[in-house]
Order: sequence, then C-alpha cells, then structure tokens
Amino acid sequence: MIDIIHRVGIKAPAAKVYNAVATVDGVAGWWTKETTGESKVGGVITVRFRDHGAETEKGRMDLDVVKLNPGKEVHWRVSAGPPEWIGTDVTFTLAQEGEYTVLLFGHRNWREAVEFMAHCSMKWATFLLSLREYVETGKGKPSPQDLKIDNWN
Amino acid sequence: MIDIIHRVGIKAPAAKVYNAVATVDGVAGWWTKETTGESKVGGVITVRFRDHGAETEKGRMDLDVVKLNPGKEVHWRVSAGPPEWIGTDVTFTLAQEGEYTVLLFGHRNWREAVEFMAHCSMKWATFLLSLREYVETGKGKPSPQDLKIDNWN
Repeated sequence: MIDIIHRVGIKAPAAKVYNAVATVDGVAGWWTKETTGESKVGGVITVRFRDHGAETEKGRMDLDVVKLNPGKEVHWRVSAGPPEWIGTDVTFTLAQEGEYTVLLFGHRNWREAVEFMAHCSMKWATFLLSLREYVETGKGKPSPQDLKIDNWN
Repeated sequence: MIDIIHRVGIKAPAAKVYNAVATVDGVAGWWTKETTGESKVGGVITVRFRDHGAETEKGRMDLDVVKLNPGKEVHWRVSAGPPEWIGTDVTFTLAQEGEYTVLLFGHRNWREAVEFMAHCSMKWATFLLSLREYVETGKGKPSPQDLKIDNWN
C-alpha cells in the first residue's frame, strides 16, 4: 500500500467538520469552488481545477461516494481524473479529542510513489489547512484561491 | 517501504536552497531555532522542540549526516528521538526547473503507518512552506514560531 496520510486538528464539533467534507457546498468551501454532483452513497462528486482559467483533462476528477458515516467518516473512490489517481481512495476519519475534532486524512492505494504523489501530498496538506480555516472561520482557500506550492501548481 | 514524500518549488537558486538544508544556521531558520551540532558527513545535528517551553524526551532528535552533495542532496538518518523515528531517513533532493528549485522531500522507512506518521507528514508540509519562506524572504517559521496543526502540536 502506498498512501498519503495527514492528521489535522480542527477546533469545531465533528458534525461541522463532517458537513464540510460530506456535502458539495462544504467541499466547494475549501477544495475547489467548482465542485458539483451528488454527495450520497452511490453518487458522484466532480471537482475541477483550471490551469490559468482553462479547463484541462487532468484538472477534472470524478469521486464515487463509497461511504458516508455521519460525524465519523467519508470515503470516496476516484473513477476519473489523472491516470495515477484512478482507483485510489480518499478517506476522512473524524474523532473528537477535547476541544478538537481530529481529522485523519488518507489518499490511499497509489500504485507507485511517483513525483506527482509527492506534489499531491504537499497540496493535500495545504487543502487541509484550508479546510480547517473554512470550518473555524467560515472562509477557506479553495481553488482558484488555493496556495500554489510548486511549478505544477 | 512506508514513506512520507512531499514536493515544493522554491524561487531561488539550488545553491541557496541547499545551504538552508545543509547547514546548522540554515536549518535553524525554518525547522527549529534550537539546532546544534556539526553538518558534515559523519557529524550529528541535534534539533530540539519544546512543549510549552519545557524540554521533553521526544522533543529532541539526533540526525546523523549521511550524505551532503552540494546543490543536489542532503541525507540524514535519525539516531535518537521518538522511537518511531529511529532508523528512518530524511532526504532532500534538489533540481533546477526554470525559475524554481524543485525540492523532493522524503522521510522514509517508517516501520508502520501510525497516526503519529500522519501528524509528521502534515507537520513536514508546514515546515517545507517555512523553508520556502526562509529561502525566498529571509524569514521562516521555525519552532517555537511554527504553525500548530493539531492537539499534538
């Protein structure tokens, strides 16, 4: 198994963090403003990232919603997008610890630890900081306002 | 192999990024102000992180300097610190790509993908953003001014 895993603590109830991950409006608040689809088990969420305003093939991902466990867990499987992403799993697991909701994030089952995975690991970290801001303050940094981290964006 | 890998692009010559990683003064500029030791092959660098000002056992790591390839690569092996870190490898590999120095970071050879690894992955991402700021602007966010990410710090 080749996995990206991150841990972040958010000062908010688990239900609020869950809503930010388990709804289309929530995801649009911290990952990309261009989030569409249906967040229900068996549904598909589509996210789009543009390259200087232009639509690109690798800037669009479809995420099949595999599991929605309210207040606890969200699980997506990638069914379209960059070839390296297809078939991988994205998981969010929540646990209340004192004043924090601790979010364990996983982007799991990469086939190879390629340089693009290192880019995505760094980029996910910045999106999780955006998620924390979104939940704690109401304002995240979803694409196209996302923090750029390298020459791949 | 269970590895943390990240990729970040820094708008500076590779030699400048290298100095920020390959020297004690450099590391003190973005990771922790309390960096001591000798950065030469066969030498040991010691870094310390305090818990609300107090020294703690797990807040101190010794890094054996395995490789220093000027402008290209730095490799440390952890010889003291948290049990999960001992025997792991920390690597920085640099490549010039246009106006960027692309840094491939690795914290490699964890024995298990424990929750502490997820914490460290997130924390390394924030320290790499600190490294980028340090190199590009002269001012990073080394501990104790580091960004706190969860209830473990």
